[in-house]
Amino acid sequence: MRLLLLQLNPIVGDLPGNAGKIRDGVTSAGPGSADLIVTSELALLGYPPRDLLLFRDYIGRSLEVAGTLAEDLKGYPPVLLGGAQPNPSPIGRPLFNVALLLHQGKIARSFGKTLLPTYDVFDEDRYFEPAQGPQILDLKGVKLGISICEDIWNDADFWKRKRYHSDPVQELVRAGARCLINISASPFTEGKQQLRERMLSGIARKHGIPLVYVNQAGGNDDLVFDGRSCAFNASGDLIARAAPFREDSLAIDIFQDTPAGIHPDDFSPESEIWNALVLGTRDYLRKTGFQKALIGLSGGIDSSLVAAVAAEALGRENVLGVLMPSPYSSEGSVTDARALAGNLGIRTITLPITVIMDSFDAALREEFSGLPRDITEENLQARIRGTLLMALSNKFGTLLLSTGNKSEMAVGYCTLYGDMNGALTVLADVPKTMVYRIARWRNAMGSNPIIPETVFLKAPSAELRPGQTDQDTLPPYDLLDEILHYHIEQHESPAEIVARGYDPGVVYRVAQLVKAAEFKRKQAPPGIKVTDRAFGTGWRMPIATGEWDLNGGT
Amino acid sequence: MRLLLLQLNPIVGDLPGNAGKIRDGVTSAGPGSADLIVTSELALLGYPPRDLLLFRDYIGRSLEVAGTLAEDLKGYPPVLLGGAQPNPSPIGRPLFNVALLLHQGKIARSFGKTLLPTYDVFDEDRYFEPAQGPQILDLKGVKLGISICEDIWNDADFWKRKRYHSDPVQELVRAGARCLINISASPFTEGKQQLRERMLSGIARKHGIPLVYVNQAGGNDDLVFDGRSCAFNASGDLIARAAPFREDSLAIDIFQDTPAGIHPDDFSPESEIWNALVLGTRDYLRKTGFQKALIGLSGGIDSSLVAAVAAEALGRENVLGVLMPSPYSSEGSVTDARALAGNLGIRTITLPITVIMDSFDAALREEFSGLPRDITEENLQARIRGTLLMALSNKFGTLLLSTGNKSEMAVGYCTLYGDMNGALTVLADVPKTMVYRIARWRNAMGSNPIIPETVFLKAPSAELRPGQTDQDTLPPYDLLDEILHYHIEQHESPAEIVARGYDPGVVYRVAQLVKAAEFKRKQAPPGIKVTDRAFGTGWRMPIATGEWDLNGGT
Repeated sequence: MRLLLLQLNPIVGDLPGNAGKIRDGVTSAGPGSADLIVTSELALLGYPPRDLLLFRDYIGRSLEVAGTLAEDLKGYPPVLLGGAQPNPSPIGRPLFNVALLLHQGKIARSFGKTLLPTYDVFDEDRYFEPAQGPQILDLKGVKLGISICEDIWNDADFWKRKRYHSDPVQELVRAGARCLINISASPFTEGKQQLRERMLSGIARKHGIPLVYVNQAGGNDDLVFDGRSCAFNASGDLIARAAPFREDSLAIDIFQDTPAGIHPDDFSPESEIWNALVLGTRDYLRKTGFQKALIGLSGGIDSSLVAAVAAEALGRENVLGVLMPSPYSSEGSVTDARALAGNLGIRTITLPITVIMDSFDAALREEFSGLPRDITEENLQARIRGTLLMALSNKFGTLLLSTGNKSEMAVGYCTLYGDMNGALTVLADVPKTMVYRIARWRNAMGSNPIIPETVFLKAPSAELRPGQTDQDTLPPYDLLDEILHYHIEQHESPAEIVARGYDPGVVYRVAQLVKAAEFKRKQAPPGIKVTDRAFGTGWRMPIATGEWDLNGGT
Repeated sequence: MRLLLLQLNPIVGDLPGNAGKIRDGVTSAGPGSADLIVTSELALLGYPPRDLLLFRDYIGRSLEVAGTLAEDLKGYPPVLLGGAQPNPSPIGRPLFNVALLLHQGKIARSFGKTLLPTYDVFDEDRYFEPAQGPQILDLKGVKLGISICEDIWNDADFWKRKRYHSDPVQELVRAGARCLINISASPFTEGKQQLRERMLSGIARKHGIPLVYVNQAGGNDDLVFDGRSCAFNASGDLIARAAPFREDSLAIDIFQDTPAGIHPDDFSPESEIWNALVLGTRDYLRKTGFQKALIGLSGGIDSSLVAAVAAEALGRENVLGVLMPSPYSSEGSVTDARALAGNLGIRTITLPITVIMDSFDAALREEFSGLPRDITEENLQARIRGTLLMALSNKFGTLLLSTGNKSEMAVGYCTLYGDMNGALTVLADVPKTMVYRIARWRNAMGSNPIIPETVFLKAPSAELRPGQTDQDTLPPYDLLDEILHYHIEQHESPAEIVARGYDPGVVYRVAQLVKAAEFKRKQAPPGIKVTDRAFGTGWRMPIATGEWDLNGGT
């Protein structure tokens, strides 16, 4: 029983384009390439389609396109195609999340998803009705157990807590499945592939049958899909793995027993996150129709790393660095930014902002007369820079990348409508300490370091007033990132974090900053998710909230 | 059987404050005030708590606070208190959404929610496990059927399509309930109370038992809760209704048969939406700790209406109007804005932006040399104004209200980081045609019109280049708003709207604009929801999407 797994990079909503990719994948493999060809979850629609699913005509058209694709692929092996179907019952959610079987020129059957993830970035209960009963495809006398993504993530022996009452995999095995096929759209987070492989291996071994897993590749808004489709034999050994972070296909025989075609992979956090940022940035521009990006270069570590990611993702000729020195900018901010740009081979322009600062000061002089300078004037500088960057973006049709990192997004150490401006915040889910680690890793890749050593050595600073450093107002980043990890990713209260031994004054102040910055994050650009808990579509906090555990430190 | 309904305005997360409100409501009514006191859904936590529910310590503390409240209220009637409890099972979602029964100094019991709304702004499957079986409270020999919000919204005879397979109300009746009590946190949309009353009346009549409905009041971020708790006798007649858009309490005897205490209500769309905007604005400021607001006044209808809402919500002494004329501003923009401010009695300041525009032009002259002026220079003006408004906001601790309406948010006729700046977009869910209707209605309220007649008569214009009007680039607003209604609120595709008889060129162009503006809406401030389908927490569209029905017009 030979399978061909198509690990493709669909564009959400692009029905003709996605169908074309699948058609090409099938026809280029040829009529005798496999007994079954398998795509990823919702491959025809692109994952996640989100509220596009509420447009009935979109679903109708997707099924028309699937029908045409079936006709086009008559004479080729049957195809399991990820798609959506209306729920014909007058009761329940409007749709099913399905694998459509294209066979002999028609949509022959469909196999539904049972477990619908509704947590973090997932909202599937919003759209889909759960399928009932085991979804078995009998092909050439072999019972194949079909599951879709989440269906395989509820194994009682693997998880301490089960989110769902049923285990579709167990039902498939009980119904006589001789092989498990899971079609997925499983977003990347750091370390997740190792978790997937351990879990999938365990399931194959436990039930003593082979398991095949097909994942999507590519970036869609805040989510990056890392591909790495794979297969395990009945003993739970990995026998095949597709490439990470790009399209690929994988031909396997499900009853083969020995490894064949395991794409090598580097599971280091730095390389994984780097690859996710590059793919997420490249696809965000490509899928929104942009070729070029611009970045405000401050000479700091964040904008340096973003420029390096952008140059890798888009080509150095498509990246513009903009230097916007003020009277508070250090000498190094200009020299370091220029050195970085020289190393990357990207073009820069320099637009000093002093005259514009003066014009704002003059306009506001009367209203502000007698009042001390404060955060207002600091924000003004950031907003002047943000406005200049947007003017360049508008005039030249160049997409602005924002350079904030997760630590500063968390505590609000960033200016709304200023340095937060941009279509995509590349590092939004990368803590400051990880920014440094990835920058070091990147510098060690080539023969010559890209990011100047002085960028690593200087104290982080927004340079919005004389002698300012981040640590004037924030705890050291290694401490800050630890506290943020417990609070943001583990949902621990300040009291719980203090109980771990951290200083209450610091912990409660950080928690207060996180709460106070919620209004900024609500207006932030999308960021690329790389951790289990990113700000963005999976972070749904209210803004106008009261105190329940923020006063303990005072 | 006497009930006291507490229709309160909680602050999300403010456990001590919310408990204090409930304590005050109970103690001020007195020990013999009722046989049972009933609060709204999640009254202790405030609705919607969203991802605060993922913080385990928050849930733990809420139950501690509930326990203390029970002790404090020993000697008073039992209280049904909306709250959340951990799911003790190792399988399923982490929490239950419950009504806690505070009785004789303890949390005596809890009654769980069965149907968990997961559509539009609701995400309850994200947090809650459904309760099983009828939730009956036997009180003084009377079986009371307890349901929570959505539980009562699945009546087979009322809805064409049922979202859920079970009907908890029917189960309660079968289990012998003699009265139905529904505790809710049901957000306002225009016309919804009339729908609620028809539905609730029908359920009471169908089952031949009285029905009591308790709703939350107040604004929480994008949602406004309109109160209007009410009761129906066994014939389905309305016998009591609490005040709209504010806290209230309602004492009823569930077996009383004749009307008593029906708060009069005006169900006109203009008055309903006006009241929602006023309450939403007032509570957003109060609950984020602001007293004062500022608004950019352009002399147009949108900023005029926002200023009127703000003056009503906050008091005229707490509203500042800022005029920022440019060389492209009409004479009327200044005179109309001043006349409006005079009528409202709000203070204004005037900050001309020409010198700042010149300083940006100078900074960009070299880069832009030889290129024609375009949207870049228009956006620059809007961003200079947005930056000035934020400088005033920062310096004086005054909250900036954004003045965009739903029609322009839909088609992107607004500048990101410019006129979109602000903490709250008051009219974000009000179509332009409704903005005019509400403004007319408001003018007819007092003895003298607030908004100058010239504001109604002039052609809508952003005044960002000489002689510009909105209709240079947009279809007339009455036509635009119709198309947007079908596309945004009814989820119709362009092809479906064209089939209604609209011009394909216009429809496809509008749909293209809506799609292209998604990246702006992702970065927009919260807006106050008044329709069934608002941009914001209930609008979850992908950004980087392909074409599925946007080319038909070309």
